[in-house]
Amino acid sequence: MEDNLSVVLHAQGDLRLEERPIPEPGPNDVLLRMHSVGICGSDVHYWQHGRIGDFVVRRPMVLGHEAAGRVVRVGSESARDRVAVEPGVPREMDEFFKGGRYNLSPTIFFCATPPDDGNLCRYYKHSANFCYKLPDNVTFEEGALIEPLSVGIYACRRAGVTLGTTVLVCGSGPIGLVCLLVAKAMGASQVAITDLSSERLKMAKQLGADFPLVVSREDSAQEVAQRVEGMMGNQPHVTIECTGAESSMQTAIYATRSGGVVVLVGLGAEMASVPLLNAAVREVDIRGVFRYCNTWPMAIAMLASGKVNVKPLVTHRFPLEEAAQAFETTRKGEGVKVMLKCDKNDQEP
Amino acid sequence: MEDNLSVVLHAQGDLRLEERPIPEPGPNDVLLRMHSVGICGSDVHYWQHGRIGDFVVRRPMVLGHEAAGRVVRVGSESARDRVAVEPGVPREMDEFFKGGRYNLSPTIFFCATPPDDGNLCRYYKHSANFCYKLPDNVTFEEGALIEPLSVGIYACRRAGVTLGTTVLVCGSGPIGLVCLLVAKAMGASQVAITDLSSERLKMAKQLGADFPLVVSREDSAQEVAQRVEGMMGNQPHVTIECTGAESSMQTAIYATRSGGVVVLVGLGAEMASVPLLNAAVREVDIRGVFRYCNTWPMAIAMLASGKVNVKPLVTHRFPLEEAAQAFETTRKGEGVKVMLKCDKNDQEP
Amino acid sequence: MEDNLSVVLHAQGDLRLEERPIPEPGPNDVLLRMHSVGICGSDVHYWQHGRIGDFVVRRPMVLGHEAAGRVVRVGSESARDRVAVEPGVPREMDEFFKGGRYNLSPTIFFCATPPDDGNLCRYYKHSANFCYKLPDNVTFEEGALIEPLSVGIYACRRAGVTLGTTVLVCGSGPIGLVCLLVAKAMGASQVAITDLSSERLKMAKQLGADFPLVVSREDSAQEVAQRVEGMMGNQPHVTIECTGAESSMQTAIYATRSGGVVVLVGLGAEMASVPLLNAAVREVDIRGVFRYCNTWPMAIAMLASGKVNVKPLVTHRFPLEEAAQAFETTRKGEGVKVMLKCDKNDQEP
Amino acid sequence: MEDNLSVVLHAQGDLRLEERPIPEPGPNDVLLRMHSVGICGSDVHYWQHGRIGDFVVRRPMVLGHEAAGRVVRVGSESARDRVAVEPGVPREMDEFFKGGRYNLSPTIFFCATPPDDGNLCRYYKHSANFCYKLPDNVTFEEGALIEPLSVGIYACRRAGVTLGTTVLVCGSGPIGLVCLLVAKAMGASQVAITDLSSERLKMAKQLGADFPLVVSREDSAQEVAQRVEGMMGNQPHVTIECTGAESSMQTAIYATRSGGVVVLVGLGAEMASVPLLNAAVREVDIRGVFRYCNTWPMAIAMLASGKVNVKPLVTHRFPLEEAAQAFETTRKGEGVKVMLKCDKNDQEP
Repeated sequence: MEDNLSVVLHAQGDLRLEERPIPEPGPNDVLLRMHSVGICGSDVHYWQHGRIGDFVVRRPMVLGHEAAGRVVRVGSESARDRVAVEPGVPREMDEFFKGGRYNLSPTIFFCATPPDDGNLCRYYKHSANFCYKLPDNVTFEEGALIEPLSVGIYACRRAGVTLGTTVLVCGSGPIGLVCLLVAKAMGASQVAITDLSSERLKMAKQLGADFPLVVSREDSAQEVAQRVEGMMGNQPHVTIECTGAESSMQTAIYATRSGGVVVLVGLGAEMASVPLLNAAVREVDIRGVFRYCNTWPMAIAMLASGKVNVKPLVTHRFPLEEAAQAFETTRKGEGVKVMLKCDKNDQEP
Repeated sequence: MEDNLSVVLHAQGDLRLEERPIPEPGPNDVLLRMHSVGICGSDVHYWQHGRIGDFVVRRPMVLGHEAAGRVVRVGSESARDRVAVEPGVPREMDEFFKGGRYNLSPTIFFCATPPDDGNLCRYYKHSANFCYKLPDNVTFEEGALIEPLSVGIYACRRAGVTLGTTVLVCGSGPIGLVCLLVAKAMGASQVAITDLSSERLKMAKQLGADFPLVVSREDSAQEVAQRVEGMMGNQPHVTIECTGAESSMQTAIYATRSGGVVVLVGLGAEMASVPLLNAAVREVDIRGVFRYCNTWPMAIAMLASGKVNVKPLVTHRFPLEEAAQAFETTRKGEGVKVMLKCDKNDQEP
Repeated sequence: MEDNLSVVLHAQGDLRLEERPIPEPGPNDVLLRMHSVGICGSDVHYWQHGRIGDFVVRRPMVLGHEAAGRVVRVGSESARDRVAVEPGVPREMDEFFKGGRYNLSPTIFFCATPPDDGNLCRYYKHSANFCYKLPDNVTFEEGALIEPLSVGIYACRRAGVTLGTTVLVCGSGPIGLVCLLVAKAMGASQVAITDLSSERLKMAKQLGADFPLVVSREDSAQEVAQRVEGMMGNQPHVTIECTGAESSMQTAIYATRSGGVVVLVGLGAEMASVPLLNAAVREVDIRGVFRYCNTWPMAIAMLASGKVNVKPLVTHRFPLEEAAQAFETTRKGEGVKVMLKCDKNDQEP
Repeated sequence: MEDNLSVVLHAQGDLRLEERPIPEPGPNDVLLRMHSVGICGSDVHYWQHGRIGDFVVRRPMVLGHEAAGRVVRVGSESARDRVAVEPGVPREMDEFFKGGRYNLSPTIFFCATPPDDGNLCRYYKHSANFCYKLPDNVTFEEGALIEPLSVGIYACRRAGVTLGTTVLVCGSGPIGLVCLLVAKAMGASQVAITDLSSERLKMAKQLGADFPLVVSREDSAQEVAQRVEGMMGNQPHVTIECTGAESSMQTAIYATRSGGVVVLVGLGAEMASVPLLNAAVREVDIRGVFRYCNTWPMAIAMLASGKVNVKPLVTHRFPLEEAAQAFETTRKGEGVKVMLKCDKNDQEP
């Protein structure tokens, strides 16, 4: 084998491209040659701030967790499967794992969450049970996009989106967009989507949003809620909040129909001032999501069957060697999804 | 107003086209001028057999329950809304209605179930709460098709079909076809569908079935189940049985993945011999459906948004005056859905 | 018949005991001779403040909605059933009612919510469908207590309390106490309960609370949460917040186990500052309750079978003629539940 | 350490008490000194028939899976915890395990299901994650009884038993009795229970059954269903079928209220002739159970809190050395639960 060039964050602001030893897979692991790895907002956040909440980068950590690659070794056997990587692998069979919510397991391994290394590198080992074979008609990049797509799937599942559901998505960044795509694929009849930027709403419109709505920081939450009701003809059954902004969380509550659901995907400040009374007496349930669980097989099925088209989300591609430029592009908020191509011999999608 | 020509079943085999008085709507009713009314297998069954199970035609009854029309009067007001008619209207606020399952209410009114009159006529009155306004971009015929579509919606909802679900539909008659359409609209990644007739499977294929499968009466249930698994690459999560045939119910159980669901839509004999042990130890749940509830708003939303296209289901149209010919066509199993056009001045879809 | 002495609130602070005509029941109504009616905090609140949120007393309104009595007339028939009264009666068959959540119907009739009259009087008419026959072994007072008990049933149902669930109840007023009783009856293995008053916790202890915990206004929410975890040995699966105090809502979120549920029963200020981020990333769902629905049959079944003993909740009784004194007692927060005895000839429990 | 006397089934009818080597625990295992192990009907069935369905005893297998003991070693450490043993341990992180239904995992290890050894012996090793610490106030025998209790918990959970649910249990053998106990602990207001033997119904009565009903083989299913409705005053919401007899499965369907649930616990013949049409049109769902999952923590919580008293179920005790006599007692159907005492130095409950 060759080198194992890796994107390593040493400390806040100190991102390096360096050689790492090729890892030795354990008995339940596979060794992967990485092909496509997307850059996530959290990767950039660790780079810029050295931490997210209580997760602090204390020693050098490989970034990257939106990934697909090719299996090169299973135990002592060589292999060839193309796979998508689910970055979270529970370490203990605790009550959460046994109950089907392994994402809540406090000891879970998770790529590129300190201190666990990610997979923005040439060679990476991972639990075989959390690598999912890609059908021939699903590309590596689609495989890598299953990670952000999973956030959308899990959010829409927690919201109970189904046929005829009307949905408001707050925020049309990458996560808002996957929530839009998934809601539509689950049968949502109308999706409204908000953003501060009319530019970002254009992409939302192209991806199928029925009602794009530009909001401004001056709008009151109740005004925005009323505009949403006006556009849609009724309050939406479900609101998926993807910004983490306090005012947007307020809008989410006011806008949602009685008996409906607000899902909190965006992460904001520790404390938020929200109209809980309004939510309570109208039985608008508030549900958070922490990453996702049990989404990869469903995501692969939907990609293979063409139920959803995520390809337009990839707006930039860089070879692994140009990771610095790729991170800089993401930091500036250009495009939607920046993809790093880790395989020197195959830079196709 | 004009005449009220009605299709009245007097007794087994005795179907007449006759004048009826225009009904007087009560305080909670609307008076409708009917536009399009589909013929259902149950209409034909009452005509041919004079009964379905314990429901016996003992006095003349107007047929028809797949209907859309125009409101002409609300109380003493005239009105103009185009509406689809939900044929079941609960008469009592009993435990079933209060609990959101009004279809199970034993005293429910239901169009064209003895002794309640249906709406295959020119003028018909109905509870205003069970008439649903059609948006401009939904035709009367689409409105009439909401009734069979509701069977599919309710079956798929009871089955828990969602994004990435794999589904087997047994039988590709009109109900099998709507289950197929709805499963796809809810995000099913693969739908297999069986029938004895390769002719009927052609329509299924056109409507989006991934795996049409011709079965014969000689096939054992386990063989068919294995063929389904072979085609789909895995056992389906959900099977929707629309034939009522004992062998098909057996197939449904054997074919479904552990932890999955079989929904029984087709009505068969009182007793059925089925592999309950196999279902029990693999936790394949068996759920029936009795008509539907809470489906019209969702159906209208999906028709208005173009999530599903039911128009190809209408293969024949007859003016109300030619009801005899329309019933004969349905009896012979020609085409999929036969539509009667009740409005002399508007025979458009 | 005799007089119809009624407790009428004319305006803020203006509570009168006065004669009212005996009402004439409609075709779906029964006429009741009221027997026992409990005073609720909301009755006192209307008296003291003239309003609750958007509900304003604009014209004289009979108070009372925790009620049981005897049917004296059904239509034109006389009758004798002893019944408990569910105070909310939906007026329209809207989407909420059809879907089994009639409590959310915006046009619902509700006793003693302006402008709808309550039943703190001698004679009262009510929808027959919302009067529930009491078995012989359930007293009128138990029947009247079904109303507050329903809040507890509905809250515990929304929380998903079942066998082995561990529960924290915030606040040990009447509603906190019924939540405690119901949680125990549903199989909760441990119930902790908080209050500012050690006096009120004594009653909680007598009614079966495992861990009574005195809190003070100075305690931080996180401290209280940690104390709860310390006492119970683990974080509770479910927290039922009955105080409406912001700090207590914060405690509820911090205290609840990941993947658990906070139910908001207490009504507080319109805006609340709470650790939504903490709730979101640990998937602690936040659910409100608006009154209740579908609880009376279940409550009667549990009272008849002795699964729960609500009798100790009644600490004071007054004849209807002494309503002023009864209201004053409730206002001062003495005891738990004050019961008014409306039947001159039968003042038994 | 001492000997490892074990109850080993060599082939149909060939049950031996023999020495086995003390096992060597792996890195995720604990070594247990067994204390109390109950004999299950399946142990006797393997002994008498050499198989259950497709599970065939092909080589000598230690029996026993209702067990509690003391941890003596964790890895290389010695330890002292008293634990109950969950006999099923998933071997793969497959879709079932990840989804919270590990009991459906086809590769699961399960004590005393061929070819996996059970724990009716002195020393036994088990996955540490599937040993649950017993509080001081829960005895070893209660710990061993968690296994049959789990069948009841899981059946009642699948049935959705909660406060005010009315329940019919078919069969009052050990499993019927635990379903009765659990249903009551979950808040069931009425439990009817059937059996062919009035003797067995006496125990059911003592354990809290409200309506014991002797049935005979001559009774038709519909007659029994009507008698149940007559006794209870209404059809039960839920029926838990614990006999596996075809006629009893028929009764279960006819007896259950529309919209209710039948849970199949008893195992019968591969094919069963049942009134599926009746179940389907009344939306009586039919759900099987395969063992259980996620029940031990809940069971321990309920035993520790005194919510359920299983002690009366143990009617016989034998030292491990007298296993032959214990099995003979169970085979003859004497008493309810026979407990083997595996620890020479502690034969207490």
